[in-house]
Amino acid sequence: MAVAVYAGTFDPVTFGHLDIIHRAAAVYDRLVVTTTEGMSKAPLFSLEERLELLRANLARAANIEVLPFTGLLVEFVRSLGAPVIVRGLRAASDFESEFEMAMMNRSLAPDIETVFFVTSPQFMFVSSTLIREIAFGGGDIDPFVPPTVRDAIIEKLSRLGIEQQRPGGKG
Amino acid sequence: MAVAVYAGTFDPVTFGHLDIIHRAAAVYDRLVVTTTEGMSKAPLFSLEERLELLRANLARAANIEVLPFTGLLVEFVRSLGAPVIVRGLRAASDFESEFEMAMMNRSLAPDIETVFFVTSPQFMFVSSTLIREIAFGGGDIDPFVPPTVRDAIIEKLSRLGIEQQRPGGKG
Amino acid sequence: MAVAVYAGTFDPVTFGHLDIIHRAAAVYDRLVVTTTEGMSKAPLFSLEERLELLRANLARAANIEVLPFTGLLVEFVRSLGAPVIVRGLRAASDFESEFEMAMMNRSLAPDIETVFFVTSPQFMFVSSTLIREIAFGGGDIDPFVPPTVRDAIIEKLSRLGIEQQRPGGKG
Amino acid sequence: MAVAVYAGTFDPVTFGHLDIIHRAAAVYDRLVVTTTEGMSKAPLFSLEERLELLRANLARAANIEVLPFTGLLVEFVRSLGAPVIVRGLRAASDFESEFEMAMMNRSLAPDIETVFFVTSPQFMFVSSTLIREIAFGGGDIDPFVPPTVRDAIIEKLSRLGIEQQRPGGKG
Amino acid sequence: MAVAVYAGTFDPVTFGHLDIIHRAAAVYDRLVVTTTEGMSKAPLFSLEERLELLRANLARAANIEVLPFTGLLVEFVRSLGAPVIVRGLRAASDFESEFEMAMMNRSLAPDIETVFFVTSPQFMFVSSTLIREIAFGGGDIDPFVPPTVRDAIIEKLSRLGIEQQRPGGKG
Amino acid sequence: MAVAVYAGTFDPVTFGHLDIIHRAAAVYDRLVVTTTEGMSKAPLFSLEERLELLRANLARAANIEVLPFTGLLVEFVRSLGAPVIVRGLRAASDFESEFEMAMMNRSLAPDIETVFFVTSPQFMFVSSTLIREIAFGGGDIDPFVPPTVRDAIIEKLSRLGIEQQRPGGKG
Repeated sequence: MAVAVYAGTFDPVTFGHLDIIHRAAAVYDRLVVTTTEGMSKAPLFSLEERLELLRANLARAANIEVLPFTGLLVEFVRSLGAPVIVRGLRAASDFESEFEMAMMNRSLAPDIETVFFVTSPQFMFVSSTLIREIAFGGGDIDPFVPPTVRDAIIEKLSRLGIEQQRPGGKG
Repeated sequence: MAVAVYAGTFDPVTFGHLDIIHRAAAVYDRLVVTTTEGMSKAPLFSLEERLELLRANLARAANIEVLPFTGLLVEFVRSLGAPVIVRGLRAASDFESEFEMAMMNRSLAPDIETVFFVTSPQFMFVSSTLIREIAFGGGDIDPFVPPTVRDAIIEKLSRLGIEQQRPGGKG
Repeated sequence: MAVAVYAGTFDPVTFGHLDIIHRAAAVYDRLVVTTTEGMSKAPLFSLEERLELLRANLARAANIEVLPFTGLLVEFVRSLGAPVIVRGLRAASDFESEFEMAMMNRSLAPDIETVFFVTSPQFMFVSSTLIREIAFGGGDIDPFVPPTVRDAIIEKLSRLGIEQQRPGGKG
Repeated sequence: MAVAVYAGTFDPVTFGHLDIIHRAAAVYDRLVVTTTEGMSKAPLFSLEERLELLRANLARAANIEVLPFTGLLVEFVRSLGAPVIVRGLRAASDFESEFEMAMMNRSLAPDIETVFFVTSPQFMFVSSTLIREIAFGGGDIDPFVPPTVRDAIIEKLSRLGIEQQRPGGKG
Repeated sequence: MAVAVYAGTFDPVTFGHLDIIHRAAAVYDRLVVTTTEGMSKAPLFSLEERLELLRANLARAANIEVLPFTGLLVEFVRSLGAPVIVRGLRAASDFESEFEMAMMNRSLAPDIETVFFVTSPQFMFVSSTLIREIAFGGGDIDPFVPPTVRDAIIEKLSRLGIEQQRPGGKG
Repeated sequence: MAVAVYAGTFDPVTFGHLDIIHRAAAVYDRLVVTTTEGMSKAPLFSLEERLELLRANLARAANIEVLPFTGLLVEFVRSLGAPVIVRGLRAASDFESEFEMAMMNRSLAPDIETVFFVTSPQFMFVSSTLIREIAFGGGDIDPFVPPTVRDAIIEKLSRLGIEQQRPGGKG
């Protein structure tokens, strides 16, 4: 059975991530989507919240599972018996840091392969960082994230005492 | 009347920024130069100081106005009736993050176009970050910024208790 | 009156080119679209054919004109009284050769500015070269070019003795 | 059964190609390696010779097959029931042309996914073009290609009337 | 006598740095390796520790000296009578920030030349940042740093109260 | 004695090449500038003409010599006892093909180091290819090449039956 692992910070998960997840799930028997505590220094969403938003948007996919990991990603991947780490490549992504990480992971675990999937053009410029900035600025993030994620950001911002402008009325 | 908006952090404004500003002002009827509170996490200069340094160096240009904005840039651009956001492209700039921001802004405001102007070669490697580092190190920043900006940095550093070495004697 | 010139080989014109043309036409009073004899070594379409395909797809735009040029582009631009050369930037384009050309043109004509517009994501990967290859291979080029261009390629290929497979039945 | 197709010009096949082939064969049940007549304008080796050199170096791999294709690659991939096109990414490769091709292929065949594998660092700078140039210049190509390929190049060059210098005595 | 200066943060020194150091030392009469207090905001190792780790791994090279600098690098380089700053270029390095820094340094000190050496492929993806992350995650860093550096990281992590997993048992 | 070799096509030599040559000559005891027959498929200038134009513009530099080479560059470099190949890096150059060539040369000759010098910003966009195009189009190439080269191009174009427009009256 062909198993693959797709890891990210998912702070929050975007349509770009979901695009890669569904593409990968279509060509592997089982896809494990994973994230961890320390991948972002001061995440907007906690590990539990990020996992919950992933699960809320992947509940109907029979061969996709959402699991946290701790320590080294390659150890987690190996513990699942997965030979493949999936990464998404965006035209606007930091291609070189992706290369660096793939090579370091290969050095740590020669038996695990990193393969790159390409995001669809319409999601190629969607980044969690810009989405957070747009939401803070009161912009409409509906084109970039599912409704559950949009609602979670609005709730999070109101808890943080940031009165967000109506996003729907912006774009 | 063709109006365009040029936004940046300008911490501080450099000859590279001024080059783009004058190029854009030459092909638009009116150019609004703008900056905001939150574009840099810990700016050397406050919003008011950055606006003041811009105005001091753009006073003589009849069709250039310096204004702050809050919230989303595209909302500010739309409020001015401007259909164009001007960005400067440097060979050494992060081209991909520019693309990402342009695409996100297009998604938020399809009626507003981002156009890129190219900095002159001699200013292509001038960055506010490096200028701040050189000034902290006591280097001569005269080739990169106007005298008002150089004086403001020296004053700022002396207020911060950093005894700057004589910049004029360095380069 | 703000005039701009958009130059290319247009062998053939694609939806990516048309996207840039309509974006530029929206922010300039008049846009001149131009091409020349020598911009491609062995073009599929002659200069006359390329101009004709451009005109066929731009007939309804009141402020767009299609004209050939000879010699240096900057001379042609200057002869039109246009201060601006428009270029399209694709994530997949040769950004560095664009920079080089912009800088050489600035050196030849400091009074003329090159400004870059960004293609929409869905057309960012569309290139005339790949379209010709797909057509030669019998693939469906409908997503990339208007019907007039598709028909012209099919006719051209059949004249060249290349029996194209039914493109509509492919994609 | 997970099937994938790895296409290239292979003029000639290098250790870099073989690295990608073995990596891909390790994570797919079956890998079809393919090339075609028209992928290089004036190849050093004919289609038959390129297939033969591939087969000579892949004979022992049970799940790897070498087959030619004609027409569009995506049609060939679909005819094999393969949902995946494998591409090798080198730090020194034309990343943007790879992106462009992947996107055009996705447009032609949304059911087929392009996935990128990363060459090992030691083969990351190996290109068929440079190998041909080094061989023409009389350099040692042993670090870049298997012995069968090296012998085929030497024989090809001697047939072309190019007296190659002793490669073994160079590097 | 041809003198050159190689500056970096070296937090900690890696096999990639050592590769560049030995390459540069082979073509200059004397190479000064240098680092400073402020080059990283929150370094894992203090300036003294970083100098010590450099010296421990460069003790046997007769023409290599390890010295700290303060203020501007170009001033330090000039004080040594060195006309050359050596920088290492990695395929995965931020090439554009290197260009920017080289140009700013040229502007500050036209008499000092920046020359770039290329890291060996096997070290091209080694970065101090990733090494720190791998060590924090309990991964084996032996392929990337000398034993003295590995031991120093383990000791540092245990002092910081981070119980590292056995690195040797990982890769 | 520190010897270095700077190789290129020089079809024709530009101010950008001369900038690199003088920078390299300032930090090496002896610099050999070299070119060869086959580096460009259909050069505008013959090998003899290219050498002559180089010599005409480097006659006064005591430590610079102009020599042709045949076969592999690394063999020529080794025959001179030079441990260093000098390459110029332009922001607009094909950085990746430079890396590839440096790595292939290192593989062929581990004892020879490739070092990169950075062109001055004002020459960073000057390419022989664009200069030939501008000259063919009748443009002023005085900002990019020395007078001897400009005269040689004009003479060459008139011999080729191309009536060049007055270059001086263009830029």
